[in-house]
Amino acid sequence: GTLVPVAWYEGAFFYQVFPDRFFRAGPPGKPAPTGPFEPWEAPPTLRGFKGGTLWGVAEKIPYLVDLGVEALYLNPVFASTANHRYHTVDYLQVDPVLGGNAALRHLLEVAHAHGIRVILDGVFNHTGRGFFAFQHLLENGPESPYRDWYYVKGFPLNAYSPHPNYEAWWGNPELPKLRVETPAVREYLLGVAEHWIRFGADGWRLDVPNEIQDPEFWRAFRRRVKGANPEAYIVGEIWEEADFWLQGDMFDATMNYPLARAVLGFVGGEALDQELSGRTGLGRIEPLQALAFSHRLENLFSRYRPEVVRAQMNLLTSHDTPRLLTLLRGDADRARLALSLLFLLPGSPTVYYGEEVGLEGGHDPENRGGMIWEEGRWKKGIRESVKRLARLRKERPELRTAPYTRIYAVDGHLAFTRGPYLVVVNATPFPFRQDFPLHGALP
Amino acid sequence: GTLVPVAWYEGAFFYQVFPDRFFRAGPPGKPAPTGPFEPWEAPPTLRGFKGGTLWGVAEKIPYLVDLGVEALYLNPVFASTANHRYHTVDYLQVDPVLGGNAALRHLLEVAHAHGIRVILDGVFNHTGRGFFAFQHLLENGPESPYRDWYYVKGFPLNAYSPHPNYEAWWGNPELPKLRVETPAVREYLLGVAEHWIRFGADGWRLDVPNEIQDPEFWRAFRRRVKGANPEAYIVGEIWEEADFWLQGDMFDATMNYPLARAVLGFVGGEALDQELSGRTGLGRIEPLQALAFSHRLENLFSRYRPEVVRAQMNLLTSHDTPRLLTLLRGDADRARLALSLLFLLPGSPTVYYGEEVGLEGGHDPENRGGMIWEEGRWKKGIRESVKRLARLRKERPELRTAPYTRIYAVDGHLAFTRGPYLVVVNATPFPFRQDFPLHGALP
Repeated sequence: GTLVPVAWYEGAFFYQVFPDRFFRAGPPGKPAPTGPFEPWEAPPTLRGFKGGTLWGVAEKIPYLVDLGVEALYLNPVFASTANHRYHTVDYLQVDPVLGGNAALRHLLEVAHAHGIRVILDGVFNHTGRGFFAFQHLLENGPESPYRDWYYVKGFPLNAYSPHPNYEAWWGNPELPKLRVETPAVREYLLGVAEHWIRFGADGWRLDVPNEIQDPEFWRAFRRRVKGANPEAYIVGEIWEEADFWLQGDMFDATMNYPLARAVLGFVGGEALDQELSGRTGLGRIEPLQALAFSHRLENLFSRYRPEVVRAQMNLLTSHDTPRLLTLLRGDADRARLALSLLFLLPGSPTVYYGEEVGLEGGHDPENRGGMIWEEGRWKKGIRESVKRLARLRKERPELRTAPYTRIYAVDGHLAFTRGPYLVVVNATPFPFRQDFPLHGALP
Repeated sequence: GTLVPVAWYEGAFFYQVFPDRFFRAGPPGKPAPTGPFEPWEAPPTLRGFKGGTLWGVAEKIPYLVDLGVEALYLNPVFASTANHRYHTVDYLQVDPVLGGNAALRHLLEVAHAHGIRVILDGVFNHTGRGFFAFQHLLENGPESPYRDWYYVKGFPLNAYSPHPNYEAWWGNPELPKLRVETPAVREYLLGVAEHWIRFGADGWRLDVPNEIQDPEFWRAFRRRVKGANPEAYIVGEIWEEADFWLQGDMFDATMNYPLARAVLGFVGGEALDQELSGRTGLGRIEPLQALAFSHRLENLFSRYRPEVVRAQMNLLTSHDTPRLLTLLRGDADRARLALSLLFLLPGSPTVYYGEEVGLEGGHDPENRGGMIWEEGRWKKGIRESVKRLARLRKERPELRTAPYTRIYAVDGHLAFTRGPYLVVVNATPFPFRQDFPLHGALP
């Protein structure tokens, strides 16, 4: 096949890190922060902190290099009152608990030195209540110069009651919605977007971008980010098909939950905990036979332009879903198969931290446990599969570029090609022997 | 007389600026911020903003040079929800409404280029409710790693009721008191103190330092600040005699309200609005005859070491008192006389912005009006006196260094020497002719 020139993020192996939970360390040669934090291995809580830092992520770059990781997606790192840091307090400061701006600087340097890109999580639809402009409005009411920064329905703000008198994300008073049509707000957010790209970040994952129902904002966002770095990656958190966002004027890609549903439906089979998935954004995942699965894939691969298909953030789970092994009721073989498929399909395979060692956990906050670093406690085999697939992918660039072509799809059995390669998948617990008519299917 | 080597702040002419109210301007060549702000000349309100900026202060440096100013004392400039900015939200960011860190950088450059020093206002006893650590605690309760940053009596915090369950300045829930004995808090505050000195500030005015009842904190503060710049000036807001703070291990000086009371008592006479002063930290000011006045001065000048006397921030009014002309019921001659005395006594004469042009105003917020920039509306004569006295002081360094010696003090008449100079004061409305026996009084 011919090699297509691709952006770094097309087909790159992403690894998602939830910073409070990955590794706790101080700056090189200095002690780790002491908190007070909750114990690393205690069941995670909605409000508790375990004290992971960006210094810690940097210290674990060799682990990620060994795994074959090519890019990091960091859950939010800016100053926030929440352990997940989606309640932004200051968009221009890395959270001091994570090590502050110096720690992000260090992480970027170490990651880049190892060829690993880093994208940040941008939460631009709403702020936390602790954000400067909101606090200003809370204290000063209509006399605040920030009075047009939010959608206020009355003063004084009642920010600490269940019925806020301002627009908030899903009515949650903790998350007042920013008014992006106010020029100062828009300029502020675009300035933030540009600032961190110039700081060295390689792109943005955008939190709930569909809530900002102003395509011009996202077009301006793209111009600003790509103006600072034409190679920056912009990936939106859109849980469904996202044609509107992927025309080339807004995002490079979306988080490919539709693909996750398809893979889990095909690979999960009897093992899949449908009740558990049904209580999340994944929805109740219906089992799929190979042909239905392939049709879903073909739909996803044909509805977008090829560069979008290559750039889609293909994931199985995230901080917003139960963990893979838990969804599969502990079936490590199916977890390996699902992850293997991720690396063999077009798009950017994305692994949620700990997925590769079999971390378990149901709903938030259980799915955000402290990473396990003792090899002896890792679930055997999954990590080895990921590592092998990642290497294969690096050695064979057509696995990034070549389209998906179905060869065979019957019951639990699927065969497809990616350029010169044939992939055969057996999603049943039984041996599978089959001759395929490959005439014309391979180059 | 012999010249004593003195620090820059000993006897320097300070000018206090309330940043929201001095001058509104954008960066050089760019438009001023548009707010929304309240009209510049409308009566100031407790919560309203007029949009003065540090760009604006920088633009008015030529005015200050012309007046003879040698140092600026800026009311707080860090991000805050209050127009006075004593409710700190972020100690490491200049308020964006003031122009942000870039505006302070610019002001420091312009001021320094004109030989004018700049000291900042440090509010370390308490924070605003919007401060990061407080918001963290408010949202997360005892699970926050900041749980030892305040004096919390119960969770959840009830921060928006009149009866906070945490220690607060004068019980005001808006101003939670920091727990400086927590090592992380102490290190944070000392880091802030050092940061801005290294940034280029020439010293700190400390807000309510007596509320931090831990002399070791202030000793560490001094070491940290003087370590960064041995010439930095540290002046505490202590409203009474301050022997404890002025032993050389904590502050260089205090805001000399006791001297203000004495000068106003002597010069104010019948004009003084005692009821008005009585409702402020000045207290009810009793009229003083010359001898009683001189005794007060002699007490203030003898109780501290000479370098402290020279460094005392001698003021008549501030953002915490009614304005001079209002206290004197509009008597501009007495205002001129009071200001003249300030420049002829040992210590650092400090003028509150607008005092020199006769700005009027009673209690907060009236005493914080927008500066008047139209010459035609200035009260005649006061500014010329200040300017003349400032020049005199610059030309005759003994006015900074020489001690005060009483020569004559009867009724409303006072004469004293400062080294080779004789000062004769007539605080009555009537002419005054008197021969003084100067034998031995002058060198």
